[in-house]
Amino acid sequence: MVYITRREHFNAAHRLFRPDYSDAENLREFGKCSNPNWHGHNYILFVTVKGDVNPDTGFVVNLKTLSQLIQERIIDKLDHKNINLEVDFMKGRLASTENLAIAIWGELEPSLHRIGGILHSVKIEETENNSVEYFGT
Amino acid sequence: MVYITRREHFNAAHRLFRPDYSDAENLREFGKCSNPNWHGHNYILFVTVKGDVNPDTGFVVNLKTLSQLIQERIIDKLDHKNINLEVDFMKGRLASTENLAIAIWGELEPSLHRIGGILHSVKIEETENNSVEYFGT
Amino acid sequence: MVYITRREHFNAAHRLFRPDYSDAENLREFGKCSNPNWHGHNYILFVTVKGDVNPDTGFVVNLKTLSQLIQERIIDKLDHKNINLEVDFMKGRLASTENLAIAIWGELEPSLHRIGGILHSVKIEETENNSVEYFGT
Amino acid sequence: MVYITRREHFNAAHRLFRPDYSDAENLREFGKCSNPNWHGHNYILFVTVKGDVNPDTGFVVNLKTLSQLIQERIIDKLDHKNINLEVDFMKGRLASTENLAIAIWGELEPSLHRIGGILHSVKIEETENNSVEYFGT
Amino acid sequence: MVYITRREHFNAAHRLFRPDYSDAENLREFGKCSNPNWHGHNYILFVTVKGDVNPDTGFVVNLKTLSQLIQERIIDKLDHKNINLEVDFMKGRLASTENLAIAIWGELEPSLHRIGGILHSVKIEETENNSVEYFGT
Amino acid sequence: MVYITRREHFNAAHRLFRPDYSDAENLREFGKCSNPNWHGHNYILFVTVKGDVNPDTGFVVNLKTLSQLIQERIIDKLDHKNINLEVDFMKGRLASTENLAIAIWGELEPSLHRIGGILHSVKIEETENNSVEYFGT
Repeated sequence: MVYITRREHFNAAHRLFRPDYSDAENLREFGKCSNPNWHGHNYILFVTVKGDVNPDTGFVVNLKTLSQLIQERIIDKLDHKNINLEVDFMKGRLASTENLAIAIWGELEPSLHRIGGILHSVKIEETENNSVEYFGT
Repeated sequence: MVYITRREHFNAAHRLFRPDYSDAENLREFGKCSNPNWHGHNYILFVTVKGDVNPDTGFVVNLKTLSQLIQERIIDKLDHKNINLEVDFMKGRLASTENLAIAIWGELEPSLHRIGGILHSVKIEETENNSVEYFGT
Repeated sequence: MVYITRREHFNAAHRLFRPDYSDAENLREFGKCSNPNWHGHNYILFVTVKGDVNPDTGFVVNLKTLSQLIQERIIDKLDHKNINLEVDFMKGRLASTENLAIAIWGELEPSLHRIGGILHSVKIEETENNSVEYFGT
Repeated sequence: MVYITRREHFNAAHRLFRPDYSDAENLREFGKCSNPNWHGHNYILFVTVKGDVNPDTGFVVNLKTLSQLIQERIIDKLDHKNINLEVDFMKGRLASTENLAIAIWGELEPSLHRIGGILHSVKIEETENNSVEYFGT
Repeated sequence: MVYITRREHFNAAHRLFRPDYSDAENLREFGKCSNPNWHGHNYILFVTVKGDVNPDTGFVVNLKTLSQLIQERIIDKLDHKNINLEVDFMKGRLASTENLAIAIWGELEPSLHRIGGILHSVKIEETENNSVEYFGT
Repeated sequence: MVYITRREHFNAAHRLFRPDYSDAENLREFGKCSNPNWHGHNYILFVTVKGDVNPDTGFVVNLKTLSQLIQERIIDKLDHKNINLEVDFMKGRLASTENLAIAIWGELEPSLHRIGGILHSVKIEETENNSVEYFGT
């Protein structure tokens, strides 16, 4: 079993807050990340897929196909978007990096069977100092 | 004359648009960067200061002092903020990286005399692929 | 279960040597890393914490709290210090990156219960070519 | 048990193709990577070794010894070479990054016993966006 | 005047050699870079354009337009190609990074007038340790 | 005229202090960088050389020759050393990055004539946030 990782990126706005909190309560809980006027990041996404090497191609999965799948299902919905307001798979969820990783797993995992690999992990670097990884369980 | 560079960063939301344009016109001119719901970036800021080396300290300027100055004048106003709505020195300007570099120069240049250096350049990396540098003229 | 990683850094001096060896013996065993006049590194520290996502906050643990904990327990004791001479939790240990990772685990693991996460790994990059990771067992 | 990782690199040419396919069939399967005139990469290799820390040295294995072993067994055979034509351990294999990681594992694993560590993983970054990791099974 | 830089990349094969030299002479002059079976790199290209900021757009030039121009004129001709055999603007030239930077300047400079900027520099990173920059004179 | 840059690195210990100051005075002037027990860095050195391209080789200067020259004159004297105590060309100078860049220029500039290039700049990154560049005047 071999693990391959594709790196993609998207630039998006977001805000950490709970709609049932006042701005003051959100500020106390989430600090400057709760700014009602939004802020944003250059998110870096690493998708790792595992599987046996196909002896006909030498590939676990074709990376071009994997990249297109991530582009259609994830990047096109997130890039230059507002994560809180415009991303269908984040509706009703707190826009934390943890929740984003779990949601991206949910979007990608069923599609990966189509191209013959098994999703191993979704990792997101929000900044050079902060990252989150999710393995599906 | 020696050149020293301090690297700082801030995460912010912005939107490229002209208020005298319709959303459709802004989309044609600025593409997905004109999204009315904002997007954002991890901006990296490089401030380069030049000067003679002070024989008493071995420094052009004290980098801790320089970092504090950039923090107070620039980072505190931009980090986790909306560049279009909340940054005093960007009011009324298109929130492009070019205009941001020029505005940061305007904020820093007079203050640098206070710490004994000469501002040489302001460079901003908006993404790993796009950057802007301004030398004051 | 989600894994979050916080990146911190410290600059320190150290020396690889055994006090029961002569300088010649230390040189044979540890090469130029045994220089009695010390050398140093920009160490990069990655602390990975795992846990369930708190539905109230969307966080495994609050990264600001995690960063402050690492700062107090680890960075304040190591940054701009001599690892062999000045770091309480390295007293009597060979100042290798392996031993440093194990010692940092020992300092952080009990404190993490306080903020509600489980320590998963401590990784240290000593140089861009050399790194060490410890998972606690 | 502690995990140490050594980073090395090599620059090489390769081509993805099957000799039993026509150029048109190879182009359909492998895209521009099948160019009969070759292309190339700056490959980055990460070798991770695990083991107990030797109390005499503070090391899992001596990184200088590990680096020399990787140099002799792997880098000297790949650097500034054509992977399809000149690398003994890739003869008869499709020159994919997956197969390269598996082959490097095969070359390194027996030799590591000599220096007292256990090979944990071989990771290759072909580009900043594409990487492969192999754990031996 | 503001300077903007666009980063692009291409993966290519090449060989340093003179056709009027024997393989032995080429080896003496160019070392392992003269390997007749080719080797390759992940080249990173930085194109810097200078100009006044257009008050209507906040741009020196539109970076999307600049990126497309570099793609058509440069990347499409170099990516996954053999620099010695397949690149029209390198025909008859030694495939050194110096000559590549000069040739790319020659390709881009006339086209830039079309999009309203002035070419300032072409920088190529061949490896993380080796780079070349050309300013047109 | 083309500019080529070679990147090298060295790991060293140092301390910022004046021998005519007390420890308290040094602490006030240089902060934690004055720690009498030393600290250290992974310094990254960029040496840029300019010149015409030699039509026989396609090179400004041979990068292997340049690298060897930097190794002998600079890296061998600094790597795994104490900059204050062990580096001949830093004797009697405050061990700031500014002074180090000037001293490295002084060591390299005369030697470069030997290999046919003109020294353009010496740049040192002390940390990822702090760097210094010197152009010889």
